[in-house]
Amino acid sequence: MKKFNKVAVVGVGLIGGSMALTIKKKGLAKEVVGVSRKKRNLLLAKRRGVIDQGSQSLGIVKDADLLVFATPVETIMDFAPLVSRLVKKDCIVTDVGSTKRAIVSRLEKLFPHYIGSHPLAGSEKQHVRNACVGMFKDSLCILTPTKSTKIKSLNQIRMLWKQMGAKTVLLSPQEHDRILSFVSHLPHIAAFSLMGAIPREYFKFAACGLKDTTRIASSGGELWTDIIFSNKNNISRNIKILQDNLSKINSAIQRNDKRYLASILRVAKEKRDSLD
Amino acid sequence: MKKFNKVAVVGVGLIGGSMALTIKKKGLAKEVVGVSRKKRNLLLAKRRGVIDQGSQSLGIVKDADLLVFATPVETIMDFAPLVSRLVKKDCIVTDVGSTKRAIVSRLEKLFPHYIGSHPLAGSEKQHVRNACVGMFKDSLCILTPTKSTKIKSLNQIRMLWKQMGAKTVLLSPQEHDRILSFVSHLPHIAAFSLMGAIPREYFKFAACGLKDTTRIASSGGELWTDIIFSNKNNISRNIKILQDNLSKINSAIQRNDKRYLASILRVAKEKRDSLD
Repeated sequence: MKKFNKVAVVGVGLIGGSMALTIKKKGLAKEVVGVSRKKRNLLLAKRRGVIDQGSQSLGIVKDADLLVFATPVETIMDFAPLVSRLVKKDCIVTDVGSTKRAIVSRLEKLFPHYIGSHPLAGSEKQHVRNACVGMFKDSLCILTPTKSTKIKSLNQIRMLWKQMGAKTVLLSPQEHDRILSFVSHLPHIAAFSLMGAIPREYFKFAACGLKDTTRIASSGGELWTDIIFSNKNNISRNIKILQDNLSKINSAIQRNDKRYLASILRVAKEKRDSLD
Repeated sequence: MKKFNKVAVVGVGLIGGSMALTIKKKGLAKEVVGVSRKKRNLLLAKRRGVIDQGSQSLGIVKDADLLVFATPVETIMDFAPLVSRLVKKDCIVTDVGSTKRAIVSRLEKLFPHYIGSHPLAGSEKQHVRNACVGMFKDSLCILTPTKSTKIKSLNQIRMLWKQMGAKTVLLSPQEHDRILSFVSHLPHIAAFSLMGAIPREYFKFAACGLKDTTRIASSGGELWTDIIFSNKNNISRNIKILQDNLSKINSAIQRNDKRYLASILRVAKEKRDSLD
């Protein structure tokens, strides 16, 4: 793979930071620069060797030949028009947003060499202090080309993820959002709702089960508000599916239908066992 | 603590097996015997040094001075009358059932020296092959005395759990069932329902979030059907609370109320962060 001259990462958090760090450590670029709202964040990123240069202003992305948006979904949408006036016409652009339909639709109009990415990696610990080179190793990264995607850009982004250790798979932005609304967004919403339901004074009786089930509720905040609003229809439908499944269990309890409850639990167990 | 002469464990699975093994390894009894429906299970338990003797029939519990019920809740209820005719009048009896109201109410009528236990330990891997001496180390064990509990039995059972590494806490059977319906039963039901909601063909796109959130769905089966039916009212109410919380998120989505959604997520995050 041809080395990039200058890579710009807008949003130096867990994922943006891990990309920057991995690109630097693997020598995939001559220079990696980062943009962040917070000066402290940039200082830490520089000290940890995540980026070569950092700035609180977008001007630093000028001359980049690869630009990565790694902020929450809404911020990507907000920054994109300004960034498009700053970068070179032939700059390859990607983002790591957790939903793709809205982002791809906007960004592919602004950047001729854009292709959406979604690395299925990360954790609820969202900060550059947790960024690491191994973040994408053996993970899956979904790319979301459309009919306007240039093959050359697709191949370069694909190769970049491969070099960072990820396997890539192609989905349309619509397919991506539908699938992720089930395997990622719904579990998060279940965890948020579960946390809300459990009285705090009972926490001292919590064992691993509750902790595991709700671990991802720790990622609540701006990031997830954005994700949910950028995939409203899929998520809204899924919440109803989950509520229906809860109702099935509740009505089995009410009408004393042990066999039906047992069959629901058997299917759940069997599906979960096939997930590992 | 006075050493027990003979400890009998009815149900040699993960928890019963771990108790037997810990009692043996720590020399808390001269002899530990086990009862299981499955011969293979008993052979494995003997080979692993979990029990000294095993039997498929309950007759082996005769002469025990400590008896532990460690089968699913329903089976404890079914076996108890027969066992009460076999054991000595002064045998100390406990169980490790996950719900306590129904069990305690029945068992304290049958055994003069009964007290309910619920060790908050274990995992979704329910088999004697996973039994281990460290199972209860630094865990919490809830004991559920009532006004008919003898102080002497309470103290002996309390001491036993302490020797096995657990801290004990006392709750009434009703309090126990109410609290566990939130911190244990509801997360399980959420995980079962979530598993049901997610199309199997999307599993290949699942990251850690889904896996963690649904790990406990693997424990589905007879054990959990019993648990749910033995705590119906609490669980039924909790399912409705969870559904209401899901509806709050869904209506925030529908009416585009970002601030309200963000506040739900913030509370969830803050509560979850306080759980570790």
